[in-house]
Amino acid sequence: MLFEYKIHTRYVETAQDGIIHHSSFVIYLEEARIAYLQKLGFDINDLEKKKFLCPITDLSIKYIKPLYSLEDITLQVFIESFSKARFTFHYKILRQEVLCATASTTECILNELFKPIPLPSDLIEIFNKEKLRISSCRI
Amino acid sequence: MLFEYKIHTRYVETAQDGIIHHSSFVIYLEEARIAYLQKLGFDINDLEKKKFLCPITDLSIKYIKPLYSLEDITLQVFIESFSKARFTFHYKILRQEVLCATASTTECILNELFKPIPLPSDLIEIFNKEKLRISSCRI
Amino acid sequence: MLFEYKIHTRYVETAQDGIIHHSSFVIYLEEARIAYLQKLGFDINDLEKKKFLCPITDLSIKYIKPLYSLEDITLQVFIESFSKARFTFHYKILRQEVLCATASTTECILNELFKPIPLPSDLIEIFNKEKLRISSCRI
Amino acid sequence: MLFEYKIHTRYVETAQDGIIHHSSFVIYLEEARIAYLQKLGFDINDLEKKKFLCPITDLSIKYIKPLYSLEDITLQVFIESFSKARFTFHYKILRQEVLCATASTTECILNELFKPIPLPSDLIEIFNKEKLRISSCRI
Repeated sequence: MLFEYKIHTRYVETAQDGIIHHSSFVIYLEEARIAYLQKLGFDINDLEKKKFLCPITDLSIKYIKPLYSLEDITLQVFIESFSKARFTFHYKILRQEVLCATASTTECILNELFKPIPLPSDLIEIFNKEKLRISSCRI
Repeated sequence: MLFEYKIHTRYVETAQDGIIHHSSFVIYLEEARIAYLQKLGFDINDLEKKKFLCPITDLSIKYIKPLYSLEDITLQVFIESFSKARFTFHYKILRQEVLCATASTTECILNELFKPIPLPSDLIEIFNKEKLRISSCRI
Repeated sequence: MLFEYKIHTRYVETAQDGIIHHSSFVIYLEEARIAYLQKLGFDINDLEKKKFLCPITDLSIKYIKPLYSLEDITLQVFIESFSKARFTFHYKILRQEVLCATASTTECILNELFKPIPLPSDLIEIFNKEKLRISSCRI
Repeated sequence: MLFEYKIHTRYVETAQDGIIHHSSFVIYLEEARIAYLQKLGFDINDLEKKKFLCPITDLSIKYIKPLYSLEDITLQVFIESFSKARFTFHYKILRQEVLCATASTTECILNELFKPIPLPSDLIEIFNKEKLRISSCRI
């Protein structure tokens, strides 16, 4: 089964058009992604304590249905691909069974001098294991 | 010349990694886009008073250089394409001459029942005129 | 027992000083307050569907300890006082047993013309009942 | 004359009730306060590079009139008081001549170990000079 993360949408995340603002989806993705990485055994706070950064290099979102305040939504996240220096997650945002958005984000890891470094071998191992695990999931 | 919009990055828009959070870029795009549309003669507040919505359907951002708090940045925006029901803007985010991000957003217009409607003819006219104007700009 | 609401702090809610930004506390208060009102049987979305508004008129926060990203915190909320036209909640923000902030907010109800209206009698009844219930709680 | 700072309210800062969310006022205060401190010769980014923190300890806001998206508002800020270890700013938020909110914030300075330190003597000098300057202003 794909990793799932529950979010309760906030009142403040709406705008005057009455729906959740599209920028809040970016924050939902991050919250789910960090939880997913934690579940896989990779902690972003630990990474940053070692003076590494893990910035987003590419983001894309397809908005399908509006979200409203005070709703319970589910995010599905999975590692889509990774290379020597980058990794890409794919996301679905669902309200019950209804698909409200899809998204993907790509990240790299930078050292203290803001230079990209190769992904640590334990992270590659984690991703390989997870790719294998989810290969049997219907995505 | 392309439309330009100045933004002063905020302290609150940083995160613990010391750089402007990637979700703030989405807000910068919106602020610049609304100003651009206003400049072209199209006011989002007027649209909403008439009970129409103008939601984003697609968003993509390519992050190239980090931004920091309390910086003056410039957004360039232009209408990239439009169809009967959708329109797409392209953006560049610059710190002085340095390109820090590129982005594009696509929007549609919905009526009170959340059904997409054809773009109003005055908006199409505005976009045609603007496409002509910027065809001579170096993008 | 006082109403309690759990929040998981978000990465994006930090700023470059490494702690949760003080403006995020305002959002935590709102999330807990809305949940508390819902628990008491009062739904802010219902109120707004009837074209009423429920704006904050006074806010104060005392920050005691910093909060960090990806922490589980607890908000305690209770109705402190109410008059014909206003009501005040008091809050504690705790990390485990440690008090990290206290706060209070006052709200009123406005009609479509932005004029304050007397609190509806069912809301007063709810508050009276809740005041009675919590009178036995150690605050 | 009191220090004034202009802000253009953002679409995203509204919520579904159609007005600027009360949490955004906290961000406006910070933006104005940082600009005021910079004007007085005190740079928060410099402070943080030296591993000091400057957290808010107390915040209070009185909301008088709603603000709407895409408005030009003015913040007036001045140093209200300071002691050995804390300093308090007072704020007015105005739309043209109309007072929409008043606020105050208190800050302290912490060292790397999160211990409060006495205000640096140059900051005290700055505040004394500014108190003298504004003593002739009608507040």
